[in-house]
Amino acid sequence: MSSWNHKHIIDLARFSLDDYQTVIELASRFKSLPNSGARKLPALQGRLIAILFFEPSTRTRSSFEIAAKRLSADVQTFSAANSSLTKGETPLDTALTYVAMGADTLIVRHSCSGVPEQLAKSLEKIGKPTAILNGGDGLHSHPSQALLDLFTLVSFFNPNEPNIKAIKGKRIAIVGDILHSRVARSNIWSLTGCGADVILCGPPSLLPKDFTNFAKIPPSGQLIDPIKSRGKVLLSNSLKEALEEADGVITLRLQKERMKQNLLTDLDTYHREYGISHKRLETCKRSNVPVLHPGPVNRGIEISSELVDDPSVCLIEDQVSNGIPTRMALLYLLTASKQSLGYKLIK
Amino acid sequence: MSSWNHKHIIDLARFSLDDYQTVIELASRFKSLPNSGARKLPALQGRLIAILFFEPSTRTRSSFEIAAKRLSADVQTFSAANSSLTKGETPLDTALTYVAMGADTLIVRHSCSGVPEQLAKSLEKIGKPTAILNGGDGLHSHPSQALLDLFTLVSFFNPNEPNIKAIKGKRIAIVGDILHSRVARSNIWSLTGCGADVILCGPPSLLPKDFTNFAKIPPSGQLIDPIKSRGKVLLSNSLKEALEEADGVITLRLQKERMKQNLLTDLDTYHREYGISHKRLETCKRSNVPVLHPGPVNRGIEISSELVDDPSVCLIEDQVSNGIPTRMALLYLLTASKQSLGYKLIK
Amino acid sequence: MSSWNHKHIIDLARFSLDDYQTVIELASRFKSLPNSGARKLPALQGRLIAILFFEPSTRTRSSFEIAAKRLSADVQTFSAANSSLTKGETPLDTALTYVAMGADTLIVRHSCSGVPEQLAKSLEKIGKPTAILNGGDGLHSHPSQALLDLFTLVSFFNPNEPNIKAIKGKRIAIVGDILHSRVARSNIWSLTGCGADVILCGPPSLLPKDFTNFAKIPPSGQLIDPIKSRGKVLLSNSLKEALEEADGVITLRLQKERMKQNLLTDLDTYHREYGISHKRLETCKRSNVPVLHPGPVNRGIEISSELVDDPSVCLIEDQVSNGIPTRMALLYLLTASKQSLGYKLIK
Repeated sequence: MSSWNHKHIIDLARFSLDDYQTVIELASRFKSLPNSGARKLPALQGRLIAILFFEPSTRTRSSFEIAAKRLSADVQTFSAANSSLTKGETPLDTALTYVAMGADTLIVRHSCSGVPEQLAKSLEKIGKPTAILNGGDGLHSHPSQALLDLFTLVSFFNPNEPNIKAIKGKRIAIVGDILHSRVARSNIWSLTGCGADVILCGPPSLLPKDFTNFAKIPPSGQLIDPIKSRGKVLLSNSLKEALEEADGVITLRLQKERMKQNLLTDLDTYHREYGISHKRLETCKRSNVPVLHPGPVNRGIEISSELVDDPSVCLIEDQVSNGIPTRMALLYLLTASKQSLGYKLIK
Repeated sequence: MSSWNHKHIIDLARFSLDDYQTVIELASRFKSLPNSGARKLPALQGRLIAILFFEPSTRTRSSFEIAAKRLSADVQTFSAANSSLTKGETPLDTALTYVAMGADTLIVRHSCSGVPEQLAKSLEKIGKPTAILNGGDGLHSHPSQALLDLFTLVSFFNPNEPNIKAIKGKRIAIVGDILHSRVARSNIWSLTGCGADVILCGPPSLLPKDFTNFAKIPPSGQLIDPIKSRGKVLLSNSLKEALEEADGVITLRLQKERMKQNLLTDLDTYHREYGISHKRLETCKRSNVPVLHPGPVNRGIEISSELVDDPSVCLIEDQVSNGIPTRMALLYLLTASKQSLGYKLIK
Repeated sequence: MSSWNHKHIIDLARFSLDDYQTVIELASRFKSLPNSGARKLPALQGRLIAILFFEPSTRTRSSFEIAAKRLSADVQTFSAANSSLTKGETPLDTALTYVAMGADTLIVRHSCSGVPEQLAKSLEKIGKPTAILNGGDGLHSHPSQALLDLFTLVSFFNPNEPNIKAIKGKRIAIVGDILHSRVARSNIWSLTGCGADVILCGPPSLLPKDFTNFAKIPPSGQLIDPIKSRGKVLLSNSLKEALEEADGVITLRLQKERMKQNLLTDLDTYHREYGISHKRLETCKRSNVPVLHPGPVNRGIEISSELVDDPSVCLIEDQVSNGIPTRMALLYLLTASKQSLGYKLIK
């Protein structure tokens, strides 16, 4: 039975060990559904999921849409590009429109940190039961990505049983532009929460020193950390050092505009110093160290093209694949009627 | 039983009292459906609704899409922005394409007045059974908006029974850019048709004097008015005068380009003279005068931000919410098989 | 029972007579489904069709989407315009993303010839069971269009029985910009394959002389032609000559940029010399010669406006209409489980 009691999913600082385990177990069950007819579940029939993407995205949007359809929900997608935003509407007014049209859950992506949380608070204030699922906000948080990464790592370390214990005591290197990455921030919460140590690695301009303290205190507005004992957060500007003791690697997409901002000199140097390749992975003391990437990749920049195409090491395909059942789990937990929780439907 | 006999819905000049009552009753029944599973009705299963929006719109399009999905129809949306219109196709050729692909009903929005009617006539001429539902054309007509406004007002004045009699003898002030508003035009037909008086209010440049006669004669091509006795249409350039005797207010979105066209001097003056706020509503002799707005709003221009956020007075949320069952009613009346009409399905 | 054994549909050079007949029969059965409820078949329930259109298209995309929905598949559409392609991803990486998300069949359109074939080969190489359906690639191939044209012609020549024999020995004139037309290329394969003679007609700049040999040898990578005896391919720069013995005409859309490329002098001359009209059709010795066009049309350029609007001669509407059951047939053959083939489901 689940102890799930979140109305919204804004970030992972609020997640308990039970929460992580609930998501991983549920994702694992959804993943094991057969490939044909019964692949679709009636769990969210008649429910309306509105996908409000104020920042463009293809793969994340598609992943959420497919997840929602698998649960038989109706899906309504709003993209800022072809919207009445040009008419000067605020995100809250847009959200309220879809709430008034009957949306049960809003999946919100926005380039400004904090928009999903603001929406959740505003909806609470006016007494709406609508759930908010953060689809990525500014530099703040991208919980569904971190959870599918967790599911992928847990499945890699223990393919037989989906249990977050598989990640406990492991060391995961996160490599690249930590400074600008909401994915890295969410990964830090989930990985240290489940007892893994995290070593952050990147050039000094993209790796702020105070990240050592990142997960030590709960974010503003949250009094306590639901996790009693977190893994450590370490920092290094040396990829060699970061890889040496690593059990797994998450490499991040490098936005090319970082060069215009004088945060990087050139891409060749970056690839030489921080690019992940078969060669660089020889630095790892452990064998079979898996590499994850949130996608889409810049082949030859943060990761070598050969590595992207080697599924025995690079788990990108697993990540994309696991995105569907992970997001089904989140939508199910937020949207299915409270009576149906305990997920009897799919047992 | 319904006496419904329209094949298309182009404008409301053709609507009889029975037609209004049929739509309001049906919308009311659709609205009372439960919030979970049974929220979806099988009424239009296997039917294809094509949404042809030659003019961009997010909320109206979403509202129609959700309404169609609730009735289990398949929905195909065409937006001019990403279309072969760039290849120089006429709206009729686009419409014929979707008819040939099996569309049962076309919902058409176009920036030119008359396009939906032309399409309906062309389809009749070549013997197609496809229905046209006007989704808003130029300055002409926006029937689904006026009908959801009517449903919202009727529900406000008599929450217990959905009957158009609730609006009879009331006075509704429509405030703003009357000249350029298809919403106002459709509201005039529906409100006067159901026996309400309408007072139109706006600056002289946006309120043509001959609107007094607007609903007095049926539009060209239509010999008689199916309504025997309509409410009056009054005009005023003074908001104070318009509000004094009002039972309800519909304020219109102000297009900011009106200033470039020298129809307005500045937005501050406009807000001071014609903006609706709690303060301005004190002019009303009656208490509890509701305010409607077709959305999206310009906060602080045609309506104060505080009023938008006060659902005890401002019914925007009800309007958006009522848009779904109202549009379900229209799609049902146009698209469901004639045998199933009399709406036994949902009784 | 079908002898269907294609995993992908890339071009028609690989099609046998049985393949053509299978598609035509299946399309014919899908076409005869009733117009209401049962119009939707459960054949592909729970299956995911991803439509990857790297080149914009409205009508082809809509046609595929409607076809997939009629078979109860889930549909996920990717358009290059609002995609992460701007993030520099290759078509293969995009395709792999949708494969990882569980797509059973990818419908791929790309402005470069060969992309769908490359994708199919890459998926084979890494052992993926996903099917590729070519939705049009560069100047190479547009198989679904040629198959719906074939279905339309066969149905015209023998309305009582859907059999490719109806086209055997007929002569079909294909008129216009042969050089740049993937539709023409696919039509040549299918028409000569089913035993029709084809006469290609256009101005010298748009009609390369070596097209006489076009279907004589299988394309590179294919050893034998599965068709033992093909119809002839003839060439003519004279429309009069092309029409004289024709049993049917396919006229092609003229891209207006051909003039900028100095391949044409002006559109009036083109219309006078190669435009199809009632008047020009008088040249045909046979009566009732039907005219097809892949759409969208340039009225008054490659075809007269009057002819477009005369459904007794111009079969454009039939083509669009037949596009749905033809594409249903292709999706069914590629996506339905092998056990269900032999199409008992719809018999």
